[in-house]
Amino acid sequence: MSTVLTPLINIVAIVVVAVLLRWLVHRLISRMTTGLGSGRLPSILRPSRAGGSAASERRVQRARTVGSLLRSVATFLIYGIAFILVLSKLGINIAPILASAGVVGVAVGFGAQNLVKDFLSGIFMMLEDQYGVGDVVDLGDAAGTVEMVGLRITTVRDVSGTVWYVRNGTISAVGNSTQRFGVAVVDIPIGYGADVDRAIEIAGQAAHETVERSPIAEDVLGDVEILGAQDLTQAAITLRLTVTTRPGRQWAVRRALTADVKMALDTAGIAAPLTAYPSN
Amino acid sequence: MSTVLTPLINIVAIVVVAVLLRWLVHRLISRMTTGLGSGRLPSILRPSRAGGSAASERRVQRARTVGSLLRSVATFLIYGIAFILVLSKLGINIAPILASAGVVGVAVGFGAQNLVKDFLSGIFMMLEDQYGVGDVVDLGDAAGTVEMVGLRITTVRDVSGTVWYVRNGTISAVGNSTQRFGVAVVDIPIGYGADVDRAIEIAGQAAHETVERSPIAEDVLGDVEILGAQDLTQAAITLRLTVTTRPGRQWAVRRALTADVKMALDTAGIAAPLTAYPSN
Amino acid sequence: MSTVLTPLINIVAIVVVAVLLRWLVHRLISRMTTGLGSGRLPSILRPSRAGGSAASERRVQRARTVGSLLRSVATFLIYGIAFILVLSKLGINIAPILASAGVVGVAVGFGAQNLVKDFLSGIFMMLEDQYGVGDVVDLGDAAGTVEMVGLRITTVRDVSGTVWYVRNGTISAVGNSTQRFGVAVVDIPIGYGADVDRAIEIAGQAAHETVERSPIAEDVLGDVEILGAQDLTQAAITLRLTVTTRPGRQWAVRRALTADVKMALDTAGIAAPLTAYPSN
Amino acid sequence: MSTVLTPLINIVAIVVVAVLLRWLVHRLISRMTTGLGSGRLPSILRPSRAGGSAASERRVQRARTVGSLLRSVATFLIYGIAFILVLSKLGINIAPILASAGVVGVAVGFGAQNLVKDFLSGIFMMLEDQYGVGDVVDLGDAAGTVEMVGLRITTVRDVSGTVWYVRNGTISAVGNSTQRFGVAVVDIPIGYGADVDRAIEIAGQAAHETVERSPIAEDVLGDVEILGAQDLTQAAITLRLTVTTRPGRQWAVRRALTADVKMALDTAGIAAPLTAYPSN
Amino acid sequence: MSTVLTPLINIVAIVVVAVLLRWLVHRLISRMTTGLGSGRLPSILRPSRAGGSAASERRVQRARTVGSLLRSVATFLIYGIAFILVLSKLGINIAPILASAGVVGVAVGFGAQNLVKDFLSGIFMMLEDQYGVGDVVDLGDAAGTVEMVGLRITTVRDVSGTVWYVRNGTISAVGNSTQRFGVAVVDIPIGYGADVDRAIEIAGQAAHETVERSPIAEDVLGDVEILGAQDLTQAAITLRLTVTTRPGRQWAVRRALTADVKMALDTAGIAAPLTAYPSN
Amino acid sequence: MSTVLTPLINIVAIVVVAVLLRWLVHRLISRMTTGLGSGRLPSILRPSRAGGSAASERRVQRARTVGSLLRSVATFLIYGIAFILVLSKLGINIAPILASAGVVGVAVGFGAQNLVKDFLSGIFMMLEDQYGVGDVVDLGDAAGTVEMVGLRITTVRDVSGTVWYVRNGTISAVGNSTQRFGVAVVDIPIGYGADVDRAIEIAGQAAHETVERSPIAEDVLGDVEILGAQDLTQAAITLRLTVTTRPGRQWAVRRALTADVKMALDTAGIAAPLTAYPSN
Amino acid sequence: MSTVLTPLINIVAIVVVAVLLRWLVHRLISRMTTGLGSGRLPSILRPSRAGGSAASERRVQRARTVGSLLRSVATFLIYGIAFILVLSKLGINIAPILASAGVVGVAVGFGAQNLVKDFLSGIFMMLEDQYGVGDVVDLGDAAGTVEMVGLRITTVRDVSGTVWYVRNGTISAVGNSTQRFGVAVVDIPIGYGADVDRAIEIAGQAAHETVERSPIAEDVLGDVEILGAQDLTQAAITLRLTVTTRPGRQWAVRRALTADVKMALDTAGIAAPLTAYPSN
Repeated sequence: MSTVLTPLINIVAIVVVAVLLRWLVHRLISRMTTGLGSGRLPSILRPSRAGGSAASERRVQRARTVGSLLRSVATFLIYGIAFILVLSKLGINIAPILASAGVVGVAVGFGAQNLVKDFLSGIFMMLEDQYGVGDVVDLGDAAGTVEMVGLRITTVRDVSGTVWYVRNGTISAVGNSTQRFGVAVVDIPIGYGADVDRAIEIAGQAAHETVERSPIAEDVLGDVEILGAQDLTQAAITLRLTVTTRPGRQWAVRRALTADVKMALDTAGIAAPLTAYPSN
Repeated sequence: MSTVLTPLINIVAIVVVAVLLRWLVHRLISRMTTGLGSGRLPSILRPSRAGGSAASERRVQRARTVGSLLRSVATFLIYGIAFILVLSKLGINIAPILASAGVVGVAVGFGAQNLVKDFLSGIFMMLEDQYGVGDVVDLGDAAGTVEMVGLRITTVRDVSGTVWYVRNGTISAVGNSTQRFGVAVVDIPIGYGADVDRAIEIAGQAAHETVERSPIAEDVLGDVEILGAQDLTQAAITLRLTVTTRPGRQWAVRRALTADVKMALDTAGIAAPLTAYPSN
Repeated sequence: MSTVLTPLINIVAIVVVAVLLRWLVHRLISRMTTGLGSGRLPSILRPSRAGGSAASERRVQRARTVGSLLRSVATFLIYGIAFILVLSKLGINIAPILASAGVVGVAVGFGAQNLVKDFLSGIFMMLEDQYGVGDVVDLGDAAGTVEMVGLRITTVRDVSGTVWYVRNGTISAVGNSTQRFGVAVVDIPIGYGADVDRAIEIAGQAAHETVERSPIAEDVLGDVEILGAQDLTQAAITLRLTVTTRPGRQWAVRRALTADVKMALDTAGIAAPLTAYPSN
Repeated sequence: MSTVLTPLINIVAIVVVAVLLRWLVHRLISRMTTGLGSGRLPSILRPSRAGGSAASERRVQRARTVGSLLRSVATFLIYGIAFILVLSKLGINIAPILASAGVVGVAVGFGAQNLVKDFLSGIFMMLEDQYGVGDVVDLGDAAGTVEMVGLRITTVRDVSGTVWYVRNGTISAVGNSTQRFGVAVVDIPIGYGADVDRAIEIAGQAAHETVERSPIAEDVLGDVEILGAQDLTQAAITLRLTVTTRPGRQWAVRRALTADVKMALDTAGIAAPLTAYPSN
Repeated sequence: MSTVLTPLINIVAIVVVAVLLRWLVHRLISRMTTGLGSGRLPSILRPSRAGGSAASERRVQRARTVGSLLRSVATFLIYGIAFILVLSKLGINIAPILASAGVVGVAVGFGAQNLVKDFLSGIFMMLEDQYGVGDVVDLGDAAGTVEMVGLRITTVRDVSGTVWYVRNGTISAVGNSTQRFGVAVVDIPIGYGADVDRAIEIAGQAAHETVERSPIAEDVLGDVEILGAQDLTQAAITLRLTVTTRPGRQWAVRRALTADVKMALDTAGIAAPLTAYPSN
Repeated sequence: MSTVLTPLINIVAIVVVAVLLRWLVHRLISRMTTGLGSGRLPSILRPSRAGGSAASERRVQRARTVGSLLRSVATFLIYGIAFILVLSKLGINIAPILASAGVVGVAVGFGAQNLVKDFLSGIFMMLEDQYGVGDVVDLGDAAGTVEMVGLRITTVRDVSGTVWYVRNGTISAVGNSTQRFGVAVVDIPIGYGADVDRAIEIAGQAAHETVERSPIAEDVLGDVEILGAQDLTQAAITLRLTVTTRPGRQWAVRRALTADVKMALDTAGIAAPLTAYPSN
Repeated sequence: MSTVLTPLINIVAIVVVAVLLRWLVHRLISRMTTGLGSGRLPSILRPSRAGGSAASERRVQRARTVGSLLRSVATFLIYGIAFILVLSKLGINIAPILASAGVVGVAVGFGAQNLVKDFLSGIFMMLEDQYGVGDVVDLGDAAGTVEMVGLRITTVRDVSGTVWYVRNGTISAVGNSTQRFGVAVVDIPIGYGADVDRAIEIAGQAAHETVERSPIAEDVLGDVEILGAQDLTQAAITLRLTVTTRPGRQWAVRRALTADVKMALDTAGIAAPLTAYPSN
């Protein structure tokens, strides 16, 4: 063969292989993410216990988002390497190009690590389906209702209406308050001199009445659990009651219980925490 | 061909390819950023839900700023590599130059990572349109009204008129209080001995009157929501009301509600928090 | 041999060696993790004292999870290197591919270190069997009952029903409150002017009665230990009692003891902490 | 040509090219920094809105300082590489020199990154003209009046006369209180039982009188804005007034307003915050 | 020799050298760690003063644990390099394997540094014999009684029975309260108006009586040291006594002394700290 | 020439060049540091405004210390490279030596970065003359009088006589209280109900008398500046006076002013802060 | 020469050079550290002012410890490189060995940096003689009496007898309270209404009497310095006295002075801090 044709054939071969490889990798990614969408997580990511029948169309959409990112990255890598190989077949010295890329890669790599962290965290959060739009979450830097779930940032609106853009990479632990059920924890401080047993009895009775009353009754899943004297400080004894509620309703139930139990204790004459103090 | 001409032809070829490549990359960047300007984000960056009809000319301007930076970087990289290739074709040993660049690159890379972080954060903040001039934001290091949005720093003027230059790379979460709506959260502490149900009723009535009164009425979007006994400490019960307002007006509404509800409770003789304390 | 056949033979040899090596490594991993499952930890991981007869089927399952991850990684590495070797035998210049991989590896390595940390921490936590589903743990970022144990994240549900997804790599110390036994620590503040010896005597007597009463008696493993005057501040003396309980029952026992001891002291007329204060 | 002459010619060529390149780069830097001096910032650095007609001779001086540093660095790099190239043309093996430089570069690079950070931060702070000598700034580690602006450190004198040398690289956000205008924020706590509406009226009247009185009047730019009940705690209601002032005068105005409003409230018999407390 | 035999001989030589080297290194490690076991620390690790005659069988066991880890690492390294050398002698191009190992090594190195830190810290803690099973230690993240000492983690059970798994690499300082002796520090607050000299005298006398009484007397090693007025705040004067005790008994002694001294002061009519306050 | 002589000549040449280069670099350093000693800082280090006529012999000594360090480093580098070049000319394969140096360099580089940071910080602190022996400084980790200024550590003696060895690299901002002048800031809290204007008048008068009295008068540089009501809390109004003093005398002046102003206010019957509280 | 002999000669030469080099380096280290032992610090380490005639035998011992470590490291490096050179002369391909070492070096380097930091910090602390056995020091993580000074860790016993093992690399600033002299700082709070001048006079007189009384007199080096009104809060005025003492005796002197001055003020009827408060 002539020396002109050989590189040409090489180049064509490289391009063909690259296109094929890209097609193969894309199929692989598609199959993998489709599996994710239909709930089949690879065993490495799957926790020891399954997570209930969560919204599957959300999973499909997320699988599509992650697949789209992975396909873009794969295309970029495969065509980039093919391009460099073609250059080298054309007789261009690619060493300086690679060295430049290396220097720039390292120099930028330090600064871009936050970016990579954000995207990697985002991908895993999506795959693990930690939260969705409408969930009430605590992301550390911000807490509130999720407005958008992105690969780089998650958007959350807090109680005063402020919208928070939180970088996924800065989230070390996610607290999701709207999964399967919530617990309303009611802490009632009573005076140091009060009769604890009687206070517990009255508080329990009041709480039981409250959770059977509409509209609280619809939000409550289990019965009231009266834990007793949770805390004993120099100024007060704190009683604790808990009750299981529908997800996202624990705060409303807690507020209702707090008011009712407190008033029942007042009515029964149980000493309020600070009245033991200026007792004269 | 003579040995003098071959490098010449090579050099010309390199220059031509570099110019072409630069033109191509610039076009690509332009198209991409124009797309951004008209609201078409690549799917990787687009959150799961669209963000409303935000000011599109702001987007166009931002797309232009980001595009300008990317074009500068691309030009610098392409011409730099072409320059080194030309040097090598002229018979100059480029290994030491590359090695020097590598050493300097690594040595500076450590120190410059903050710079890269700042610019990368700035680019993504712009693309995601997290805030604009005039928005009231909380950037962690500073909170206030945005004065300027730059690629490296964002300038914010806080409540006491101090101008803060915040490096974009130090911002881990952005809180924007002026997006679509705000929520005025009013917390009213009342005495431990007070009648909670009556206090809630009075507070609600007062709040309703306030939000229907001009000029507060123009700022309010929804009705007052009376949450009830938010918190119960040894010294006081805290009642909470919320109301949705126009963006940026939540503080004025909160102040008006605080004063009015507090005075209504005083008038109705609901015990103030600390008066239960030196009761004699 | 012809020059066409030699690379072919080489390639076949490479593939055969790779398959064999993979089979060997998989067997090794299987044997190692099976050993783990049956309680035989390599001496490096085994602490100086054995950990009791914990649930062995949990161990088997964990060994399987870890083995599955290790096998995936081994397969990926061995086939990846074989693929590159085959490419080089086909006459393709693999230097740019390796260099690209290097640059990408370093650039991503910075950002992916959190991911690697998470998985490595997860593997060791599993091998060391630090906690299982249902244990009550404190992971620093969150505390509560373990819901799932994964290689990258652990899921914990806290007292108010919020589910926390904690990255394993962010956990520096794990506190497990449900291993073999718990200790209920009861701190009772009494007034500065009280008779300490008598207070200790009364508190001890009350505690003894409590731990012999059903249903507390079933939860208690040892006898009450009366430590005495734990703390002496300007406002109060704090007495401390402890009692060993069944794992996970220490909080219920503590609450019961707190209420009973406190009421016994009240009945006996031991001065309450703050009554020395507004004594008039 | 003889083998003795060829390296000689090469060396001469290298030196000539180095001198030319240095001249070119110096010119480039000069032109760039001169542009900066006359207010023409490259678009990457220019925030979205222009910053007013700041002192241009300060800009010129800063541009000169930055240009001087950049020229030194460029000279050092170009002559250094030329020196190594000359060595290699003289037949000296430069590999060990480069390797040594590499090792030293990396080893020192870790420790010197703070230095690089300081200088890079200093350069950008100068280019962006964040503050000048005499401005009142908050740099995080120290707050006070700027005494000197350097490329590595900024010197600030705080309120008690202590001079602080702050490394530019440690500053994550700069707060400049002397740009265009300041805002005097006056917070007045009044008793919980006080009549809020009347207190606001009296406070507003007193504030209006104060800002019209000399010498406060010269420092005030706008009218007093009465925000109302800013905060409501168990012990007091906090009223807030704000007024725009000339830059740097907000503290004097605030002090004058605080005293006057407070005395007006006293005169009018508005309850002081704690008097509701020992009310007898 | 034939070209087939030469590599064969080479391979045999490599294997033989590797086996020999491994045997040599293992012997070296054994001798070194045996030396450690018998108390002969290399001078670099030995602190300036010797540590007493601690349990030598514990040392022997620890030396064995560390030796086992070091031997595993040495075996892995020596056989790994021999394997690669053998591959290269078989005519396989080992450059890609090494390069892959390098990339993976760097990429994982970032994430695995915590692991390496944990093991290195564990090795040194063992060699320096900082604590053993049963010691009461403070590791920063957790404090309590050591349950297990491992190379990667240390297990500690705290006062409420919670078992803490602490990574050795996160421990910056270890506090061991059970070495040779403890000190019971007793701080007694007395009223501001009290006669300090008389209070010191009474406290000293009471403390002397306590430490001579059984069972406290067996725990006390030295005499009571009366330091005097340790602290003087607006509300109280704090007296301090110390006494040297047997290791681990300082807390029991402190509790006994606190109760006795406090009651002696009460009996003597020394003013209690807060009674000076509502003195009427 | 013979093949034996050529390397010899080469070696001689290398040694001669190294000696010359070292002499040159030493001269350069000497000239540079001498310039520093006589106050001529290179423009990069020189802040925008000159620093007054500080003790020049201190500068000379510092320049000598820094020069000595730089000369040592330069000698080490130049002779080290020359040594390696000589080795290579002797036919020794220097690649493994360089590679070993590289590995050790990187491995140690991570750990030694603190050391490099300390020395670099020390060099710059010396060049910038931030503080000298006898100055009262705040270094963050410690505050007090400087005892020694070293290249790696600075020694400071604090108010209780404790000597602090502070690593220069840990200092992010230096506060020097003894430069040119100090400011005594006197904050006097007065009762909420007091007449602010009269209190300001009396405090001013008392302060004026104090600063004119010997020995305070010698320490005071300017007149007393009465700022007014600095702070208004629920419990007290804080008046602030400032006066410029000789460096290091601000604390003595402050103490004298505090006592005198406070007694003048007492004499004039201005209500003390807490007396408004139990007013009966 | 035959091809068999040449490598043999080379190997012998390498071994001889290595032995010589090691001997040379050891001598160098010995001379350097001996110099340190006899107080001659290299100028880089020597602070600007000499440190008094500290215990020279301690220095000798420390110099020996440091020298021993440096000699071990030098031996390891020189013989290691010689070993690799010998391998290469034997015809073994050392590239994979070096590459493996490089990968392991980098991977371990990240994790071992703490170790290197600890040893480097220890070496410098020893050379600079910051503290010795028996000194009372504050190392940040722990404070107390130094028990052992090691190259990696320092052992300190705190006031309650707990032994702390502090890694030298975690110490950012060392506070040594037993160098040349201590200062007893006595802060006495007096009532807001008290006569400051008279209180200062009485306190001074009482302090003078105390420091002249045995056994305090032997511990005191200078006279009492009465600083005056150090602090003025809403509740009290704090008077401050200081007196220079022998090193390590400042706490005993402070305690004695606190008791005596306080009782003198009581005797003289100076109002105690809180008695102004419930004055009725």
